[in-house]
Amino acid sequence: MQWTNKNGYDWCELVDIDTLVGRLLQPDLRPGKWAGEDIRKAMGGFTKENRRHDDQRRGVTLVHNDLVGSAGLSPSISVSFQPILPGEKLAFHRHNYVAIYYWVEGEGYTCNDDDGIDREETRIYWKAGDVSISPAWVNHAHVCTSKEPALQLAIHDFPDLCYRRAMLNEDPDGHENLRHMVKGVVPSFNNLDTVEDLEKRSQKISIKTRS
Amino acid sequence: MQWTNKNGYDWCELVDIDTLVGRLLQPDLRPGKWAGEDIRKAMGGFTKENRRHDDQRRGVTLVHNDLVGSAGLSPSISVSFQPILPGEKLAFHRHNYVAIYYWVEGEGYTCNDDDGIDREETRIYWKAGDVSISPAWVNHAHVCTSKEPALQLAIHDFPDLCYRRAMLNEDPDGHENLRHMVKGVVPSFNNLDTVEDLEKRSQKISIKTRS
Amino acid sequence: MQWTNKNGYDWCELVDIDTLVGRLLQPDLRPGKWAGEDIRKAMGGFTKENRRHDDQRRGVTLVHNDLVGSAGLSPSISVSFQPILPGEKLAFHRHNYVAIYYWVEGEGYTCNDDDGIDREETRIYWKAGDVSISPAWVNHAHVCTSKEPALQLAIHDFPDLCYRRAMLNEDPDGHENLRHMVKGVVPSFNNLDTVEDLEKRSQKISIKTRS
Amino acid sequence: MQWTNKNGYDWCELVDIDTLVGRLLQPDLRPGKWAGEDIRKAMGGFTKENRRHDDQRRGVTLVHNDLVGSAGLSPSISVSFQPILPGEKLAFHRHNYVAIYYWVEGEGYTCNDDDGIDREETRIYWKAGDVSISPAWVNHAHVCTSKEPALQLAIHDFPDLCYRRAMLNEDPDGHENLRHMVKGVVPSFNNLDTVEDLEKRSQKISIKTRS
Repeated sequence: MQWTNKNGYDWCELVDIDTLVGRLLQPDLRPGKWAGEDIRKAMGGFTKENRRHDDQRRGVTLVHNDLVGSAGLSPSISVSFQPILPGEKLAFHRHNYVAIYYWVEGEGYTCNDDDGIDREETRIYWKAGDVSISPAWVNHAHVCTSKEPALQLAIHDFPDLCYRRAMLNEDPDGHENLRHMVKGVVPSFNNLDTVEDLEKRSQKISIKTRS
Repeated sequence: MQWTNKNGYDWCELVDIDTLVGRLLQPDLRPGKWAGEDIRKAMGGFTKENRRHDDQRRGVTLVHNDLVGSAGLSPSISVSFQPILPGEKLAFHRHNYVAIYYWVEGEGYTCNDDDGIDREETRIYWKAGDVSISPAWVNHAHVCTSKEPALQLAIHDFPDLCYRRAMLNEDPDGHENLRHMVKGVVPSFNNLDTVEDLEKRSQKISIKTRS
Repeated sequence: MQWTNKNGYDWCELVDIDTLVGRLLQPDLRPGKWAGEDIRKAMGGFTKENRRHDDQRRGVTLVHNDLVGSAGLSPSISVSFQPILPGEKLAFHRHNYVAIYYWVEGEGYTCNDDDGIDREETRIYWKAGDVSISPAWVNHAHVCTSKEPALQLAIHDFPDLCYRRAMLNEDPDGHENLRHMVKGVVPSFNNLDTVEDLEKRSQKISIKTRS
Repeated sequence: MQWTNKNGYDWCELVDIDTLVGRLLQPDLRPGKWAGEDIRKAMGGFTKENRRHDDQRRGVTLVHNDLVGSAGLSPSISVSFQPILPGEKLAFHRHNYVAIYYWVEGEGYTCNDDDGIDREETRIYWKAGDVSISPAWVNHAHVCTSKEPALQLAIHDFPDLCYRRAMLNEDPDGHENLRHMVKGVVPSFNNLDTVEDLEKRSQKISIKTRS
């Protein structure tokens, strides 16, 4: 946080209650839909060639644009779909929010291991139809063991943590990668990404469902 | 909620993870200050004459303008100072967020009574230096019994409830006054206020602390 | 809220900071799994005969028992699976938390209409693979139009609202059914259920995943 | 997080919706009070001799014992009173929750400086009656410059972050002191405290307000 007290506290204001209400109230979110066909289409662009760092940035996420002050499908929930390719082993990482996975397709396991070691006793084996959880601040990594890609529906509760400036990541695993997830500090979830990486990437996706 | 599906779901978008991050991350709030002298000055304009509905809209609230998506001193906390005049009895009301009061000056009591009746056994008597709590969805009303005005420092946790579109009020007490606190539905905390009332009010206050 | 000040405030305590820490810290949730086979098995008991009020109480929900102070799959997220039978039309209801639906099987629509009227323009049509949202405090009802049952994976953010005592329901639609969701006030989500209904029900389900 | 998958997932359960409701609903918090006289009395035991590490563990905090699943004055707010002695300079530290201070007595400043350096331009000067904020994850330290002790009323939003297992501290400043605030990992806010320190301390305080 770079700041100075030199010009007073312009960002701090005393207002009457009615003025507060005017700023406090938000438009209600409209009901909405993200069609399965569009989700598949959006994921289509992610081939083995255009991923970065062999990591999990191949996903497609559903955002509701009536929301300001953070981003997600709702004010408190993020929903993403992410394919994991056969034989792929994503890197260990952790964050201070819970991850819930519904496994739509494929088979594999998630290792939840604070030492970042893939041990038999810290694996959770899953296949299509299962639900699993990786708790807050526990190091975890996904592995796809089926011949077909695994498809993960990931549910996270980070949008309101981000609104509250309370979100922290260590991605990939390693103390040197700890970051407070606020604007200006980080360009992506993964600390190995540079701003240049992000500008050069071929993954820019935006699809809206028509009917 | 007025809405239609006629033109699809323009507000619902599928994006790649990096695009999500760009929208997700918020600027960290800057450290800040609201000077006591400015708080006193801001409250100065509230005389017995310019209040509305004999109610509690005489307060001054502290907002941090680095915050978007709701309003408050912080993403999850609102802090307000409110004088209650000698002999004054504010109307019963309730809301689904907790109210914590630190009593800076004066003496009196808060009645926490779901029937909206001022009963001896549902009163909490307070004086300067005390802290009291009115829980979520419990009907409550403040009474000042001292010769000098009471000064209440009120701490509420509604900013993030409002961000989540989860805030409901019944103000004043009465089922007909139940309202979902979202934009377009309500002009103020109090259901008796009309938009005209708010436009005519003489309470518009804005002060910033210089050093 | 029934309470009295007659014996002081035994439930309010002043403690040193270290004592606070001892009560504040919670055990971290363990990683976990709910197998798809077990989810199917759990839903097996819900036939057309044993449901109550023609309503949506046929679901199976995933809970993590390391959590106290509320209930859900995680501290802030609830995940449930619910079949909707062919031709079935669930009753309109609303609540101050967002509902996100991933449609696993079947076809149908959700009407999001504050007047509780099934109108063409307030319907969201969905089929297997789609994701839809019913925002906070918007009246909504599900209809299954396919020959096979629809299977809904419902994601709600009520566990931490309940922990905060901020959860309100109007179920079924109607002002007389408004309820603050706290212990002692309500026996179920649906206001038409009585305690006797709940005791007589044949739906008691508990399954744990072995490996 | 130490855990094993060897005996299945006993802590993960599939239940019917009514069973969920039975675990979900919490008793509403009762209205309550913490008397100013009791707060003063509770703080009385903290002399210059019995503090640990020259740090800020001299405070008294207000807890509501109707709450389970975390601890605080309310489900989302903690309120503490803490004296800072003349000339005292507390150590820099940071945490992923916002701190709001109402300064009841005395004079001094808070340095909000990520480098942990007491610089003129990152100080916020305060005196009795002022309100200040130290944002999430910003390193901060308090200094009392008046001849009399300063009295700080501190408002934090960590109780629901702790309920969500999302709370992290770096106290005192230093990467080696980063800790996920969950049971078993940490005995106190301050990483320098050992379990033995805590057992030997003379600060154990518990006072309840009678009327």
